[in-house]
Amino acid sequence: MTITVYDLCGANDLRFSPNCWRTRLALAHKGLEAAFEPWHFTEKERIAFSGGKTVPVLVDGEHTVRDSWEIATYLEDAYPEKPSLFGGDAGRAVTGFINAWCDSHLHPGVIRCVLPEIYDRLDEIDRPYFKESRERRFGVPLDDFRAKKADHVAALGQTLTPLRTILKAEDWIAGDAPAYADYLVFAAFQWARLVSPEDLLQADDPIHAWRERMLDLFDGLARGFDAAT
Amino acid sequence: MTITVYDLCGANDLRFSPNCWRTRLALAHKGLEAAFEPWHFTEKERIAFSGGKTVPVLVDGEHTVRDSWEIATYLEDAYPEKPSLFGGDAGRAVTGFINAWCDSHLHPGVIRCVLPEIYDRLDEIDRPYFKESRERRFGVPLDDFRAKKADHVAALGQTLTPLRTILKAEDWIAGDAPAYADYLVFAAFQWARLVSPEDLLQADDPIHAWRERMLDLFDGLARGFDAAT
Repeated sequence: MTITVYDLCGANDLRFSPNCWRTRLALAHKGLEAAFEPWHFTEKERIAFSGGKTVPVLVDGEHTVRDSWEIATYLEDAYPEKPSLFGGDAGRAVTGFINAWCDSHLHPGVIRCVLPEIYDRLDEIDRPYFKESRERRFGVPLDDFRAKKADHVAALGQTLTPLRTILKAEDWIAGDAPAYADYLVFAAFQWARLVSPEDLLQADDPIHAWRERMLDLFDGLARGFDAAT
Repeated sequence: MTITVYDLCGANDLRFSPNCWRTRLALAHKGLEAAFEPWHFTEKERIAFSGGKTVPVLVDGEHTVRDSWEIATYLEDAYPEKPSLFGGDAGRAVTGFINAWCDSHLHPGVIRCVLPEIYDRLDEIDRPYFKESRERRFGVPLDDFRAKKADHVAALGQTLTPLRTILKAEDWIAGDAPAYADYLVFAAFQWARLVSPEDLLQADDPIHAWRERMLDLFDGLARGFDAAT
């Protein structure tokens, strides 16, 4: 039975959601086929069966799982014969720290850089919802982010320091081979890449070289989704 | 042959260095005995044989290892029959991210809260070196940190978000049992605890409860070093 993932989309079917990219790459790592159903921010009732209001939502036969971290741990436990996403229990727990860091620091850092550009790439039906909810969350108009982009890019550079440190020494965050720790972090850069033509990384940043390796994985899966121009 | 660790000390032989605490707990986890040689900031020539100017320095027979992360990976590889610090290769790599995060975000966050109190607890011979080097590093007088302590404690609280998130769900950062990821992070709180009577954590913070569990490990090893009063 094919797995289904409800996957956020913007205008022209742009699949930009970082949380959905975490799931897409976790499925590729496990070698599992899935159908990615396009879903809009405002289609809350379509995923009400999941118990939540956000995607990704994964449906695998009788199992419905929401939240990208819950989905990753579900896939790890449901498909133990497939390549491991975490490399064992300690790897899973410690990857959970990176998951929490992405949520509390990396995603807020990236979204401040690209928030108006996400808005520009949404379907018309989602724009009022997005503008109202994000302006309420951040307490400032979307255009303020455009005006202060350079400051936000500089702040993100500081947030990325630990990532830069380890990628100077290792090819992958998870060590000798990519795993869920890499997908988690990459998903945030894929998000930025798909909505904004301006690169958040300098060409000589070790994170830039790692992102290139990530774009090549799974026969260029992530690279196959065209970057914004 | 006994392992020797050169271990930073303040006045009254106070062993407060977070990087040295990482090593002390890694050794306890491995069940390895060690002699902790007191060392002062200004005794650079005593550790020149290590190739560096900072502690911890570990001497294990013919092996001299400096830098707490290098020491942890040395102990893991040299004593594979002892309990693992990382739970495998993926766990080691991902723990490396937490190591880098401690260096880039947790330690700078903690030191801003307790810098003048560290100064107060140093031996007289180290005070001029410490004051001069830290004021140069931060670009402000030590007393500025005292005046702005509440701001620094609030900023640290924000830095700790990912830690708080995972410790709401798990007893240990490394999952079912403590490992090097826990020692790394705890070492920063032990540092603050030993130099400052003011707790950086609220009693209802899940990090506080975890710190209590950490203080109990290895027959109360860390608790046996009296907190500042």
